[in-house]
Amino acid sequence: MSLKQRCHVPSVDLTLDYGRMGADDAFFARLEPLLAKAYPAMAALEKGAIANPDENRRVGHYWLRAPKLAPDGLGAAIEKSVADIKRFAAENRARFPEVLVVGIGGSALGPQLVADALGDPRHIHFLDNTDPDGVARVLGSLDLAKTLTIVISKSGGTPETRNGMLLAKAAGVDFAKRGVAVTMPGSSLDKEAQGWLARFPMFDWIGGRTSELSVVGLLPAAMQGVDVDALLAGAAACDEATRRPVTAENPAALMALMWHHAASKTMVVLPYKDRLLLFSRYLQQLIMESLGKDGHGLAVYGNKGSTDQHAYVQQLRDGTNDFFATFIRVLEDGGAPLEVEPGVTAGDYLHGFLLGTRAALAEKGRASMMITVRRVDARTMGALIALFERAVGYYASLIGVNAYHQPGVEAGKKAAAKILELQKKLLAGGKPAPEEVEHAELILEHLAANKRGTP
Amino acid sequence: MSLKQRCHVPSVDLTLDYGRMGADDAFFARLEPLLAKAYPAMAALEKGAIANPDENRRVGHYWLRAPKLAPDGLGAAIEKSVADIKRFAAENRARFPEVLVVGIGGSALGPQLVADALGDPRHIHFLDNTDPDGVARVLGSLDLAKTLTIVISKSGGTPETRNGMLLAKAAGVDFAKRGVAVTMPGSSLDKEAQGWLARFPMFDWIGGRTSELSVVGLLPAAMQGVDVDALLAGAAACDEATRRPVTAENPAALMALMWHHAASKTMVVLPYKDRLLLFSRYLQQLIMESLGKDGHGLAVYGNKGSTDQHAYVQQLRDGTNDFFATFIRVLEDGGAPLEVEPGVTAGDYLHGFLLGTRAALAEKGRASMMITVRRVDARTMGALIALFERAVGYYASLIGVNAYHQPGVEAGKKAAAKILELQKKLLAGGKPAPEEVEHAELILEHLAANKRGTP
Repeated sequence: MSLKQRCHVPSVDLTLDYGRMGADDAFFARLEPLLAKAYPAMAALEKGAIANPDENRRVGHYWLRAPKLAPDGLGAAIEKSVADIKRFAAENRARFPEVLVVGIGGSALGPQLVADALGDPRHIHFLDNTDPDGVARVLGSLDLAKTLTIVISKSGGTPETRNGMLLAKAAGVDFAKRGVAVTMPGSSLDKEAQGWLARFPMFDWIGGRTSELSVVGLLPAAMQGVDVDALLAGAAACDEATRRPVTAENPAALMALMWHHAASKTMVVLPYKDRLLLFSRYLQQLIMESLGKDGHGLAVYGNKGSTDQHAYVQQLRDGTNDFFATFIRVLEDGGAPLEVEPGVTAGDYLHGFLLGTRAALAEKGRASMMITVRRVDARTMGALIALFERAVGYYASLIGVNAYHQPGVEAGKKAAAKILELQKKLLAGGKPAPEEVEHAELILEHLAANKRGTP
Repeated sequence: MSLKQRCHVPSVDLTLDYGRMGADDAFFARLEPLLAKAYPAMAALEKGAIANPDENRRVGHYWLRAPKLAPDGLGAAIEKSVADIKRFAAENRARFPEVLVVGIGGSALGPQLVADALGDPRHIHFLDNTDPDGVARVLGSLDLAKTLTIVISKSGGTPETRNGMLLAKAAGVDFAKRGVAVTMPGSSLDKEAQGWLARFPMFDWIGGRTSELSVVGLLPAAMQGVDVDALLAGAAACDEATRRPVTAENPAALMALMWHHAASKTMVVLPYKDRLLLFSRYLQQLIMESLGKDGHGLAVYGNKGSTDQHAYVQQLRDGTNDFFATFIRVLEDGGAPLEVEPGVTAGDYLHGFLLGTRAALAEKGRASMMITVRRVDARTMGALIALFERAVGYYASLIGVNAYHQPGVEAGKKAAAKILELQKKLLAGGKPAPEEVEHAELILEHLAANKRGTP
């Protein structure tokens, strides 16, 4: 194991240690020709190639933090979007100490991550599901007069979001006075939101799982006082470093290589920092929805160390060797510098648990990487998001999948729609076809439990 | 695929559907002899056999909800413990609207699960790590005069908990007036807590990951007004049903068989109910720490549907087939019965997404189980916890591992202690040995980032 497998990016003060992944020189030599194709493919993407053939659209999340690189004059729209967000937040923050985000998928996971890392999670709330009980619980805890509600849906057709909005309206949310829509111009939500407090346009070249640094993430962040310029600047700096086709100095390319080296093992993401608890959940969507295709994929789970180390380390060390760990190390402890023993702080313990766990895994031949950052601030969060976005792009090139579409998601939506069609048929007194009998029984059981619909 | 592979437990109104796991009659016939050994092994455990040889102790979490079955007169101590908890909560709830739990592992994951499912998570807070920044964030949000602080540590020696307690004390928590200890009589914490508001004894025959229905979980639950009798009754009823050596009627045995059938695939736990968001995180410890041994294991991840279905379903359907799903279906929707379309509620959508996703996975040959419960209440939570506890026990028998010790955890702790020893050596001006150089560099980098210890 080489201690020299380390890559530092000064502009974002981020280091990737990959010496415990078990990759040798022959592996790097073998993969370099694949990367030599991935670099120009990424460059073409950034220049505006059609990357999502299903929807015939380009993929431009990198332009969000470098508007000057955007093709066809899109840069001006990006700059206007950021300026509009900042102005709206400056004008409205004081009267809206509470924010309610109605959205799901990328419209919730990114804002939740940034709120927990950088904001005050007590004052931002989410309707991120179509669970009536969960919705009632959130709405019941809010002072609606002090709450700005932001509804986020690209098409306006996402049922969870639409249902959340309808339930919020029924509970008394006054969208005309305190509602904002984030959506594509011309969408059903855009039409619904005529006369709301504000509407912010979404770009069609941004996918949900890479939307955190678009208006989707920036507006909730700005409403919490998060420095959105620093978020963007961190991402831009990380993009610059990870765009360069020099593998040894490119942590995104190196991570992609390590994912390839680990074959289809699961990635356990363990940030030793409470503020990064939700990072693994955010990465689940970014990574699994991008890469889980054609029999490929990279499953992700995690939470935080040392807390969840208590849950996992037994299996990680002694159980099935079907994973690799990605530790995230934060240098500055923050909080109170109290010594809990002579010369030892609580932060030293946290740091010691990270290095100790990493050593205990290595001792048993379990692979791990470690990402070190200086602190959890807006610049670092921007950099981390950008780092994983680009690693996903490179890894997709290495294994030959398109990272920017999600054909499997449609099937789930269609299957759900069929269930609701069957429910309508049953409620109208229709009989299930033979292949519908099981679903019909389950639907009727659900209706009966809610005292509805004995047809 | 048989629609008949379904097991209903009337006493807890819980159903396990396992028809989509792909197990055929030959599999059940082949495994029955192993189960025929697992049943009496479990019976011996429940009668008080030494199940954790490392610590020479018995394993008695089943006795917590059936004190009459406990050997050696332990039942009276269990009954007293529950009565003491209920009396303490009745006497103190009104003056302590906020609860702070200091604990990690089972002392946090169980209480967090139950608080999120049944309590009001806005009024219960956790110091579950040794992150000074995370601790400061929690403590800074509390009104200490209205907060009961419960410190939970069996030995008193868990560093994260000890550090959390010290940081809380430094921040002004008055343990004499508002502190409670949950610990083994005679532990260092027990001594520290002489003169606190109260002390509750832990039993040495309860392990951390099966402690939710002991004082560890019941005291925080009772302080939130959760019906602890119902929690225990639900677990007792589920225990009764899953103790019986009749496999087709025993959902815990059936789940264990299904885990065996899935070999070492990962389990994706998707409850379609916001209140069960933390169930997968809770199960990670219960399952992975119990089973992740001798090259065996069962990795778990999840969160909630349909929210996280958006993140996973692409990979689950089209990516690596290295998992099986466990859906949790809750019949009663709760919340507002608003129709979001004619005849269709938000809860119908949630139910439709569950069945639709399950169908979309089955269509691609992905295995899944489904657990149906009536509602998320205390009785159901007790039953779910008991169900998985016993499935873990049976599965451990099937694969021949001891579910009740955790030898791999010690190694991580020792490795962490070595890091702190090395830090002390460096701070005292010592030089690292050659094999310590990498750790020494990382330790010095951490110290410097916190403006400490240039020796």
